[in-house]
Amino acid sequence: MDPYPKPLRDLIAQLKRLPGVGEKTATRLALFILADRQNLAEGLSRSLQNVHENIQLCSACFNLADKPRCSICQDPSRDSSLICVVEEPSDVLALESAHTYKGVYHVLHGLISPLGGVGPEDIRVPELMERLRHSQISEVIVATNPSVEGEGTFHYIEKLIIDGKFDTRVSRIASGIPMGGELKYMDQVTLASALRYRRLTKDK
Amino acid sequence: MDPYPKPLRDLIAQLKRLPGVGEKTATRLALFILADRQNLAEGLSRSLQNVHENIQLCSACFNLADKPRCSICQDPSRDSSLICVVEEPSDVLALESAHTYKGVYHVLHGLISPLGGVGPEDIRVPELMERLRHSQISEVIVATNPSVEGEGTFHYIEKLIIDGKFDTRVSRIASGIPMGGELKYMDQVTLASALRYRRLTKDK
Repeated sequence: MDPYPKPLRDLIAQLKRLPGVGEKTATRLALFILADRQNLAEGLSRSLQNVHENIQLCSACFNLADKPRCSICQDPSRDSSLICVVEEPSDVLALESAHTYKGVYHVLHGLISPLGGVGPEDIRVPELMERLRHSQISEVIVATNPSVEGEGTFHYIEKLIIDGKFDTRVSRIASGIPMGGELKYMDQVTLASALRYRRLTKDK
Repeated sequence: MDPYPKPLRDLIAQLKRLPGVGEKTATRLALFILADRQNLAEGLSRSLQNVHENIQLCSACFNLADKPRCSICQDPSRDSSLICVVEEPSDVLALESAHTYKGVYHVLHGLISPLGGVGPEDIRVPELMERLRHSQISEVIVATNPSVEGEGTFHYIEKLIIDGKFDTRVSRIASGIPMGGELKYMDQVTLASALRYRRLTKDK
C-alpha cells in the first residue's frame, strides 16, 4: 500500500524522467516542492508550459530562440560570414562565455554516428550546406567535441565543402592540454594530439 | 549577452530553487527537458499543477492526501488506537516500507526547536493532544529522528501525556547501531546509546 496520494506519485514519476534523478531524488524533490510555501510548484509549472509553447529553433542557425531568429543571428554586430559549427545549444553557451567569438553559429543537434544509426541527413548538415550555397561565408570553424563522432563529423563536413568547391575556409577547433591541466594526468590521445599540433613559436 | 531565450532562462531560474540544483545542473536539466521529444515539459508541468491543486493534509494525521482523509487513516485494517508520531510525510513512507507497522500516524511537520524559534504550537502537537482527548489511544510511539530536536520533541510530548493523565502508553523508537553497520564507524553518541539501551537476552 502506497502512503502517497496519486498526484504526488505522478509527480515523482515525471521527475524520474530527468537525467540523474532516481526514485529517492525524485521523492525528495517532490516533497520539497510540496513543502515550499513560495509556490515553487506553480512557478515551475508555468515556466515549463512557457518553454514548451514558446521555445523554437532559430531558422538560420538552429540555436534555441523565442523568435524566428535567435538573439545572436539578429545581432548586427556579429560577423555573419563566419560560422562556428557545434553539436548542441549548450555548446553555444560555452563558447559565448569565453567572450571572444564574434561570428555566428550553426547547431547540428547531433553528430554523425554510423554505429548509432545517425547519418548526415538526420542532423542539420544539409541546412549548413544550404547556408554555404546562399550566403558568402569566409570560414567554417568546426567546433564539435574531439570525440570519435566529433572528428568524424568534422571530416565529413570538410569533405563536403572541398568537394562542393565552395570559396570557404574550413578550420577545426584546437585540441590539446587544457589550461591548468597537468601532463601527467592527460590521456595518451590528448598528449599525442598536443604534440602533433604543437605551435612553432620561433622558426629557426 | 545571453544566448538563451527568456522562457529558457526563466525555467533555469525556477529549477535552481530545487535543493542541490545549481546553475550548471539547472541548465543541463532545462536543455534535457527541451530536447526531450516525449513531452516531458508538458507532463511535468501538468503533474506540478495537479499536485499544487489537489494535495492536501489529512484532517486526522496530517499526512499528505488527495482526499480529506489519507489512505492510511481510511484503511479499516489499521489499528487506529496506535499512533506513530513522525516529523515529516517522508518518514511515513520510510516506516511503511518496512511493512511491519499496523497502526496509524501523526505527522508533526517539524520538530520543536528553541534555537530555530519553533515552539510546540508551530507544529502539530496541539492536534496530537486533541486526538488523545477525543479517541481511545493505547500507545503513542514517538518516531522522530534521534537528533537534539527529535529527542527534545519526544520528551515534550512524553511530559504532556504524563501531565495530562491520559490512559496512554508512550514509547520511543529504538536507537542503536543500524543493521549491517560496523562499530568502528559509529559515532560516540550512537555507541553510548547502543550500550545504554542494550537488550537483556538471558536473565542470570
